[in-house]
Amino acid sequence: MPEVLGVLGGMGPLATVDFLRKLIEETPAARDEDHLPVVVYSVPQIPMRPAAILDGGVSPLPAMIEGIRTLKQAGAVAIAIPCNTAHYWYDELRHAGGLPIVHIADAALAALAGRCAPGATIGLIGTRGTLAAGFFQQRLAAHGYRCIVNSDADQAQLVLTAILHVKGNQLDAAAVLLESAVAKLMHEGAAGVILACTETPVVLDRLSPQTAAICVDATRALAKACVAWWQHRA
Amino acid sequence: MPEVLGVLGGMGPLATVDFLRKLIEETPAARDEDHLPVVVYSVPQIPMRPAAILDGGVSPLPAMIEGIRTLKQAGAVAIAIPCNTAHYWYDELRHAGGLPIVHIADAALAALAGRCAPGATIGLIGTRGTLAAGFFQQRLAAHGYRCIVNSDADQAQLVLTAILHVKGNQLDAAAVLLESAVAKLMHEGAAGVILACTETPVVLDRLSPQTAAICVDATRALAKACVAWWQHRA
Repeated sequence: MPEVLGVLGGMGPLATVDFLRKLIEETPAARDEDHLPVVVYSVPQIPMRPAAILDGGVSPLPAMIEGIRTLKQAGAVAIAIPCNTAHYWYDELRHAGGLPIVHIADAALAALAGRCAPGATIGLIGTRGTLAAGFFQQRLAAHGYRCIVNSDADQAQLVLTAILHVKGNQLDAAAVLLESAVAKLMHEGAAGVILACTETPVVLDRLSPQTAAICVDATRALAKACVAWWQHRA
Repeated sequence: MPEVLGVLGGMGPLATVDFLRKLIEETPAARDEDHLPVVVYSVPQIPMRPAAILDGGVSPLPAMIEGIRTLKQAGAVAIAIPCNTAHYWYDELRHAGGLPIVHIADAALAALAGRCAPGATIGLIGTRGTLAAGFFQQRLAAHGYRCIVNSDADQAQLVLTAILHVKGNQLDAAAVLLESAVAKLMHEGAAGVILACTETPVVLDRLSPQTAAICVDATRALAKACVAWWQHRA
């Protein structure tokens, strides 16, 4: 059985496809066989991540562990999870799955470091679950960045609604709201904005050029980190 | 373990992503959990299909069977293969894998039947392997269509080169060549043109509107057929 990169996807499905496309774009390849071998587990019938973190909702952890075990049985030697919020359970997933997981926040911080000097103010756009989990803020602070997020009202009306629109494949409507959420962070002094919910970079190419220019696409960063991991594995 | 649609992909990788995106677009869904659960085996380190059909090259069949068996172990109850040429081995794959396979040519013919009346001349664009295999021509004849294909020179210079450009992620270059290949078939009287190599519909949105309008996207047809299969399964 060939060794593959396992992708624990489906959170949501379109974000998974966006990640797979970026994995191809970030691979130096001219022919099919130059591309990474991957197996993707995209089973979106899984409890919502933010509700589990914030409101004591049903945990998605058992379903995610089942996904990683299925990927391992299918040849996976490492895991990528194109869902930021899911990284709240990173330690449990790594322990239960027994496989390395390329961390999306580490990948995003590496991408940010190439663009913004320490001391800069960085906007963070994610689900309320990701923001509450704190793993992005901890990394930003460790790298010397100041972190700002949208107000609760903007989080609800702009960010969450944009995410739901992407999940419903309403991409133009999502882009209008995301544009506004990013612009508000820029207005508050953000020199860079991390799109730390994998639904949001799905519409990155629909934002205005000046807004898109300051965004760090965590999904593309994860793709790039996976290609590097694959190329340098023992 | 949840039941899933198994996708035998990687032939090529970008065509697989194109199929997955169309699977989402063809699913009536507003939320993550409305989408089909899928597991995708995308291992592009597999012998080229046309060379095996035409020139006695190494057979990709064992690798494809391994893929289907891996998908079955991961919960697959039916298989989709977003590669037209691979359907040359349809009977062997169905037998060895022990799972139903939604046939891309049946799906494409269903899409065509909704647009062109029997008796019409239909252009067929595919790899030399797919054209030599004959399963599209047989179905077109059975439905009362006349089938035309590009000349050998155009097949080599336009179609094959376009396919290789898509595999190398050179999409604009691919679109120019595909535009020309489709236009030549229109000029010879084609009322519809089936894009029967999954690399070609990847650039369908880069064709001129009048050219795109007569194309039948076999990848989208397969996606639609998979959604219908899933919704009507016992």
